[in-house]
Amino acid sequence: MNYSMLIYILGSVLKIEGIFMALPTAIALIYGEKTFAAFLGTMLFCLALGIGSTWKRPTDTVFYSKEGFLAVSLSWILLSLTGCIPFVASGDIPSFTDALFETISGFTTTGASILNDVEALSKSGLFWRSFTHWLGGMGVLVFILAVLPMAGGRHMYLMKAESPGPSVSKLVPRVKQTARILYAIYLVMTIVEIVLLLLGGMPAFDAVTLSMGTAGTGGFGIRNDSVGSYTPYMQNVITIFMILFGVNFNIYYLFLCKKWKQALRSEELKLYFGVIAAAILLITFNVRSFFPSVLEAFQQAAFQVGSIMTSTGYSTTDFGQWPIFSQTLLLILMFIGACAGSTGGGIKVSRVLLMIKSVRKELYTIVHPRARIKIKMDDRIVDEDTLRSVNIFIGCYLLIYAVSMLCISIDGSDFTSNFSAIAALINNIGPGLGEVGPAGNFGGYSAFSKYVMMFDMLVGRLEIFPMMALFLPATWRRQ
Amino acid sequence: MNYSMLIYILGSVLKIEGIFMALPTAIALIYGEKTFAAFLGTMLFCLALGIGSTWKRPTDTVFYSKEGFLAVSLSWILLSLTGCIPFVASGDIPSFTDALFETISGFTTTGASILNDVEALSKSGLFWRSFTHWLGGMGVLVFILAVLPMAGGRHMYLMKAESPGPSVSKLVPRVKQTARILYAIYLVMTIVEIVLLLLGGMPAFDAVTLSMGTAGTGGFGIRNDSVGSYTPYMQNVITIFMILFGVNFNIYYLFLCKKWKQALRSEELKLYFGVIAAAILLITFNVRSFFPSVLEAFQQAAFQVGSIMTSTGYSTTDFGQWPIFSQTLLLILMFIGACAGSTGGGIKVSRVLLMIKSVRKELYTIVHPRARIKIKMDDRIVDEDTLRSVNIFIGCYLLIYAVSMLCISIDGSDFTSNFSAIAALINNIGPGLGEVGPAGNFGGYSAFSKYVMMFDMLVGRLEIFPMMALFLPATWRRQ
Repeated sequence: MNYSMLIYILGSVLKIEGIFMALPTAIALIYGEKTFAAFLGTMLFCLALGIGSTWKRPTDTVFYSKEGFLAVSLSWILLSLTGCIPFVASGDIPSFTDALFETISGFTTTGASILNDVEALSKSGLFWRSFTHWLGGMGVLVFILAVLPMAGGRHMYLMKAESPGPSVSKLVPRVKQTARILYAIYLVMTIVEIVLLLLGGMPAFDAVTLSMGTAGTGGFGIRNDSVGSYTPYMQNVITIFMILFGVNFNIYYLFLCKKWKQALRSEELKLYFGVIAAAILLITFNVRSFFPSVLEAFQQAAFQVGSIMTSTGYSTTDFGQWPIFSQTLLLILMFIGACAGSTGGGIKVSRVLLMIKSVRKELYTIVHPRARIKIKMDDRIVDEDTLRSVNIFIGCYLLIYAVSMLCISIDGSDFTSNFSAIAALINNIGPGLGEVGPAGNFGGYSAFSKYVMMFDMLVGRLEIFPMMALFLPATWRRQ
Repeated sequence: MNYSMLIYILGSVLKIEGIFMALPTAIALIYGEKTFAAFLGTMLFCLALGIGSTWKRPTDTVFYSKEGFLAVSLSWILLSLTGCIPFVASGDIPSFTDALFETISGFTTTGASILNDVEALSKSGLFWRSFTHWLGGMGVLVFILAVLPMAGGRHMYLMKAESPGPSVSKLVPRVKQTARILYAIYLVMTIVEIVLLLLGGMPAFDAVTLSMGTAGTGGFGIRNDSVGSYTPYMQNVITIFMILFGVNFNIYYLFLCKKWKQALRSEELKLYFGVIAAAILLITFNVRSFFPSVLEAFQQAAFQVGSIMTSTGYSTTDFGQWPIFSQTLLLILMFIGACAGSTGGGIKVSRVLLMIKSVRKELYTIVHPRARIKIKMDDRIVDEDTLRSVNIFIGCYLLIYAVSMLCISIDGSDFTSNFSAIAALINNIGPGLGEVGPAGNFGGYSAFSKYVMMFDMLVGRLEIFPMMALFLPATWRRQ
């Protein structure tokens, strides 16, 4: 383990966090909120610590996958530990455990809340909460790669460890350029959403925070009914952008390069839109009697499907009241999740696709035992290592799921709430069913359960292995 | 597809079923029940059809894995279709759908019932119900291999397709001998249990039926409270035998050969007993206040853990009333299941073990990217094909699980009932939680849901691929 390099990266993360904390500090100043001191103090603390630990460039820049994994998992933990200070210091969320839960939920773009009354929070607190979604969505280390001059050349490991999906490809040969392109697309799309919401008459503060929550597929709302009280136009804009942010960003890059054909041929994209369309139609049909018109049922179904499938977690209605069929379908969408290389969570459409292809191949092999078939995706052969890691990902996911369920069941909440709580957290959605449904929150669980849940959110966002690597003694050895 | 061979095998299955139906026919005669005619008629029908279609030996004995899979899945469907006739004809279970559900539940050793009042059934009906467990436990085709002279030499494919676990090994070079040894161990253990129950003062009919249900890890009881009203001694005997029938039968063969060391070194065996011990202790601690003494809590915990982990499904108490922690733990045990090569269901301990080893290896590879590690089990290297098929098994299992959940959710039962119903069926346990808990039954679901459930039971017992092969057009092609 290259500790000097590790400290340098963690210092850079703190610097960036400190710089970004200028935004809520400014908002606190504008609105004259008493949170000002808390944000300013935390900002200066992060900057001081960050600048201090990046003062000297590390001489040893050797950097492998092990360092990448550890740097990413520790960065996210550090980011959350410092990010929650303003909430505690300002009294917005007095309990440290709750503030940490809320911050991890923000950075991991989960959007699960322990707050009963979101509207009681300060404006600056609400802004910071939503901003964590935006930063967490595309990844803080990807951001650092885009803007900071970094020593050494093996930063692909950092990007691989932070970016979602079974295989991460660089858009252009240089990692720095790739990171810049990703963030540029991300920023432009967020701004377009803000403008469209403003055009619909949404207040500027709401438009900015909700757009950041959409972009990161996070889901923290700023009203107690999430997005329920906005106009249908605004809800539809959010529906469309949720779905767009769940698309693999490589597709947008292909569009930018005018490679339309290649972009539209993507099998993951087709399955993603296919599942969304099918789910919307089935749910519209199932809930049509709950709404005055089929059109409204369709709008609501589309919003909820877009929100759950992309792991955003905004809600416009309490789908806990919908028929069990619709609830079960939404629960299944939670597990499938968004596309790889998007800001969304879940198992990812491409992993599900590879799983289906593996099953099909295995069945074919039964009938034709001597056939040697290769699994292809987008006309390219998928190598055995990727297939194996997809399968092992799912195995590990199930093991963590089972242990987490067991841990939080000690609190005695009902089975539906527990099962959907872990589903909503490990897939970075936000609301589940039952007690943790759109009308409830996660505040009722014990501190022990909340720490288990925080671990699950990080496991979900960082796709398991970086977090698991923390527990391997071999990771920490100097050589 | 070698159709003449397929018909020959299906005919043999019918012959065997006809011969075994002499037992309930005799019981109907002894007790003077009106079911006599129904059993006699079905027996003669099976024998006639069976003898007719095995009159001529197939000339073409070419037989591959494809034929093996299809023969097994069709045999089990045929077995159930004919096996349910006496229930319908005698009026014991008038609805065909319900009778088929009950029979598939019997043969697949699930033990899930649609009956409100088991005690209303005739003695002969109860006996046949329990006997299907006994035959289904070790497998009907394994039985045929043991007793009938079969044409051709590639019967390993039949045994592989019917026997549970990621890899099936022959105990001795010849398949016929292996099948005989398995059935001999199975029969002797069943008889020992019957004798021990008789020594405790249990009526002979109860001892025989309950022992058959234990041996096959089935779980059909003959009283409405399952095993709740028997003495603690009898319950303890059943607890021990449930756990013993969940052990890989290869271990018993090693014992017979006096290879103690090799037998006790089995990693699967250690994990199996480790999980059972840990679960019993945790649940005893969790439910101690529900019982007058810790000893009684321990007995009840041991019974329920043994019953669920081995996928038997007998119950002595309504664990639906236990704390959520104990219920969640039992639910997790449902998925783990018994050892490979036992009569139990579930994912199987050895698959879970291989999954854990794969995860550990993947993590190790992150830290030591250039290390080439082989996964070992019992000091032998596990080949890549087995590992891949374990992973694909789990993927396919999850896909079927999700689709089944969605299908039965149309009926509108609550989420806990639906989730645990599929868990209890695909893992061949019997009772789930909520409406389908030990105090409830599966009778409330629609006919459509029941057919989905029947499919799941067969998928669980035959470990997915034989049932899936039915849907591949390539399976049915002549060449």
